[in-house]
Amino acid sequence: MTNFSLDGWLKPQQGRVEALLKSRMDAIARRSPARLSEAMAYSLLDGGKRLRPVLCLAFADAVARASNGGGEPANDAACALECIHTYSLVHDDLPAMDDDALRRGRPTNHKVYGEAMAILAGDALLTDAFALLASGPPAEQAVRGRLVAELALAAGAGGMVGGQVLDIAEDRPAELDYLNRLHRMKTGALIKAACRMGAIAGGADERALQAAELYGDAVGLAFQIADDLLDVTASASAMGKPTGADAAAGRHTFPAVVGLEPARALAAGHVARAVGAVRELEGDDGPLAALARYSIERSS
Amino acid sequence: MTNFSLDGWLKPQQGRVEALLKSRMDAIARRSPARLSEAMAYSLLDGGKRLRPVLCLAFADAVARASNGGGEPANDAACALECIHTYSLVHDDLPAMDDDALRRGRPTNHKVYGEAMAILAGDALLTDAFALLASGPPAEQAVRGRLVAELALAAGAGGMVGGQVLDIAEDRPAELDYLNRLHRMKTGALIKAACRMGAIAGGADERALQAAELYGDAVGLAFQIADDLLDVTASASAMGKPTGADAAAGRHTFPAVVGLEPARALAAGHVARAVGAVRELEGDDGPLAALARYSIERSS
Repeated sequence: MTNFSLDGWLKPQQGRVEALLKSRMDAIARRSPARLSEAMAYSLLDGGKRLRPVLCLAFADAVARASNGGGEPANDAACALECIHTYSLVHDDLPAMDDDALRRGRPTNHKVYGEAMAILAGDALLTDAFALLASGPPAEQAVRGRLVAELALAAGAGGMVGGQVLDIAEDRPAELDYLNRLHRMKTGALIKAACRMGAIAGGADERALQAAELYGDAVGLAFQIADDLLDVTASASAMGKPTGADAAAGRHTFPAVVGLEPARALAAGHVARAVGAVRELEGDDGPLAALARYSIERSS
Repeated sequence: MTNFSLDGWLKPQQGRVEALLKSRMDAIARRSPARLSEAMAYSLLDGGKRLRPVLCLAFADAVARASNGGGEPANDAACALECIHTYSLVHDDLPAMDDDALRRGRPTNHKVYGEAMAILAGDALLTDAFALLASGPPAEQAVRGRLVAELALAAGAGGMVGGQVLDIAEDRPAELDYLNRLHRMKTGALIKAACRMGAIAGGADERALQAAELYGDAVGLAFQIADDLLDVTASASAMGKPTGADAAAGRHTFPAVVGLEPARALAAGHVARAVGAVRELEGDDGPLAALARYSIERSS
């Protein structure tokens, strides 16, 4: 049904994100103590999937119907999203949190730079995300202010951090509703913000913004269910970290709560919702639909 | 020479800040897991001096020549500054950082809520500072975007967090230049931002903004030197924490590096600079000059 080549599209998009992140990190390094910016760059520039920035730029381009459709505010939004995502991984890996030694096949930040520096590098990535998002010429200040509000609300107590608190709570019920709520906050809010921020930077009307909202919500849940499934089924070498960790930690996952096949069906349903949400925006065969499908078809 | 009564002015200003912080914290609590907002409120609403919010509102009022001269953006800026200041204390107190058990006479956040929650409460205070600062009606979005940029640059890798990294470095030289640089980043940048943000919210012209810049820089250094002096001379009960901690930790302080009396003279010089900077803005006898004098005359 689809002729769109995700591989041919995704690699250049990831390259675009890497170049943007490198330039933003260089600017931060110029105003920062060297060992701090080194610790920040270690985790920021380690070549993840860049899902959030790619989604942000894809929505900006789709809404504006041009590549680089969102201009510098979209570029900064993409980088700010990855800074926030990265800080959350650095803090989640800390001994007082998940106490993880490996991330994407490399030692975690605190294993390399020590706990104090990892806390501070995370704090700085979080803070400087907003510095780069808010800094621009006067004509861009209104849209940048709006982007900051989107990102901060998604990443804060009512979003990502709140979801992390739910995830470490001791009295988590093994229920689908609770899992949905937890992951809508812990990972979904930031993925949805990525879509909305790209749309806003691209100049979306209310209808396009609504499409971004629906798509982001659906892809966020699909992505998390796929993560849970990969933790059960994938090899450690493909993931760059030990698998089976969820079960070992007694963590409630979608496959554990509803079963393997029902979890796959749930994920497929979310993908269908996402593809439907962007049909009007990009037709039947665009990058956003392909990314939604990729969210559950990936092997790592 | 001065007839202005700081006491009569400061108490109501601090009350104004407490009420604002309470209302913002209530709004955050409505979107957040209860145990997270409880941990955030524990540290945010513990009645500190509120120096940064008071400075911010005082500059907004002075520039606009009206009380509540900066409107809601100034109120949110005041609260955002205190959220950032509070998160930095929560993270600084962590076992991996200063490992402090007491703050303002009460157990530190991680002693009450555990290390993981203290890390997350700090992250949420930091993030939600930007959420409340950036959220407002469309007409305010440009000024709010500008305020976010000021705050994030002051608090991030090139400001407060960078200063903290310098402060925990092992190779700190015992030199006045280094101390000035460290404290201009670690505490000065946020105090200066408080002054500039108030001025911006109040509608400052370039000249008033320059006054805020000079005043904030001078008060920031004066305040830090006074802190160092209090650690040598004040009682533990007045400070709400053990004193003499700097010397015990082998930390370089202004009195340790230049001597007790020269440190006092340095502080007095900064206060004179600060008072001079705001003369044009508020005349000879206003609250900003009184606050500058208070920064070195306080007993805790």
